[in-house]
Amino acid sequence: MTMSRRQLIAVMPAALTGANTAFPDVRALTVDVFGTVVDWRGSIIAEGSHFNRSHGVRIDWANFADRWRAGYGPSMNLVRKGELPWQTIDQLHRGVLDKLLPEFGITSLNEADKDHLNRVWHRLNPWPDSVAGLSRLRKKFIIAPLSNGNLALLTNMAKYAHIPWDCILSAELAKHYKPDPEAYLTAASLLGLRPDQVMMVAAHKYDLKASKALGFRTAFVPRPGEYGPSVKPETDPDESCEMVAHDFRHLADLLGAPR
Amino acid sequence: MTMSRRQLIAVMPAALTGANTAFPDVRALTVDVFGTVVDWRGSIIAEGSHFNRSHGVRIDWANFADRWRAGYGPSMNLVRKGELPWQTIDQLHRGVLDKLLPEFGITSLNEADKDHLNRVWHRLNPWPDSVAGLSRLRKKFIIAPLSNGNLALLTNMAKYAHIPWDCILSAELAKHYKPDPEAYLTAASLLGLRPDQVMMVAAHKYDLKASKALGFRTAFVPRPGEYGPSVKPETDPDESCEMVAHDFRHLADLLGAPR
Repeated sequence: MTMSRRQLIAVMPAALTGANTAFPDVRALTVDVFGTVVDWRGSIIAEGSHFNRSHGVRIDWANFADRWRAGYGPSMNLVRKGELPWQTIDQLHRGVLDKLLPEFGITSLNEADKDHLNRVWHRLNPWPDSVAGLSRLRKKFIIAPLSNGNLALLTNMAKYAHIPWDCILSAELAKHYKPDPEAYLTAASLLGLRPDQVMMVAAHKYDLKASKALGFRTAFVPRPGEYGPSVKPETDPDESCEMVAHDFRHLADLLGAPR
Repeated sequence: MTMSRRQLIAVMPAALTGANTAFPDVRALTVDVFGTVVDWRGSIIAEGSHFNRSHGVRIDWANFADRWRAGYGPSMNLVRKGELPWQTIDQLHRGVLDKLLPEFGITSLNEADKDHLNRVWHRLNPWPDSVAGLSRLRKKFIIAPLSNGNLALLTNMAKYAHIPWDCILSAELAKHYKPDPEAYLTAASLLGLRPDQVMMVAAHKYDLKASKALGFRTAFVPRPGEYGPSVKPETDPDESCEMVAHDFRHLADLLGAPR
């Protein structure tokens, strides 16, 4: 069995690959956030366990997190199709939360409590490699999130989790959610770069496929644990993945970022 | 002679003012950049002296910098009035540069040289107190530039000068230059904050006046040396200045930011 060039790059140490000679024009990395940089599910479960104790309830937060995450997609797609006016992810999350709370038997929260709970998405914890790997990558590249999360959410999260972005990019700045082309092209334009000078980094192939079609370079960082132990996301690279790294430290090696 | 409340705040140490009790709702500082955070004139003169040596020319860079800075205003105002389509400050600076170079006798630069020179505005040096003061302020507030400079310019400058912004805000995100209301209101909206939760910090009263009219809180940080030794900018506060600090360290004291 022979390995593809992609597979070879993924398994060879940086010293052997001639780090980043494959993508000498890349100046900036735009990075997906939910699932790629932060463990949204584990973070919500962890904060939920505190919520259960402080509120004297027994919510299954793994189930709650999964329902919450799945729930915002349909309304986001209505926004994408122009059937709903622009709304931020904070607003979309809140719409789902207001439906889920009574389903889970929670009817006693006041507005401040609900707003605080909705902002759990601003307080997500990075995967163990994220901050170390991104800190190295920042020495060589401009690094920015490119998430469907709104700018305030991403800014607060970066402050909370010490994620060292150079600037905050968001689908909000285009008022078009990924994978709409406008989300990616607006990001490149704001960075003052051509699409081929920007590498999209994500744990989700739909994100890489959409950006690659516009000329972005792409790096796949699969996160097998994103949806919990019982769901196996697609972790096999396909033709949308020009580079494959098993985490951000590995990506820093592959791209020749200094230690 | 009695002092106004503003003057009293400006001269009293933080421990005596009951730091930031005057503005308990403020969560974020939006900060003007050219002149307020960075010394554009001194930086261009310094880089220009290298340019003179490497190109064997004797340009008066103080004069060049003043003409360059003054030159972009008229075209920016045409953009503001809708008489020109949106252009970034990089584009406006380049338009002025292309007129100034032949006036100063420089006709030999190729495109890469001109682009590099135009990007001197991405390589401006902070005033001596800026990074130290902003680093303290960041411990207590979200801090972001709110400049007419485009996002790429501000991002590159932050990386070059180690300015620790939490996110990069710019008039570019509103496609309206300051002092148009959209520039300020878009910034507050992207931060997810009401205008009264945001303090505009600037060395220029027009900026504070425009933001205060929209409900922003304001802090004046006069920079008497901005235009060089022979020009005295207005450094006296007026009713647009709710707080007055003589530099960013002092502002950190006044706002009770930890050391």
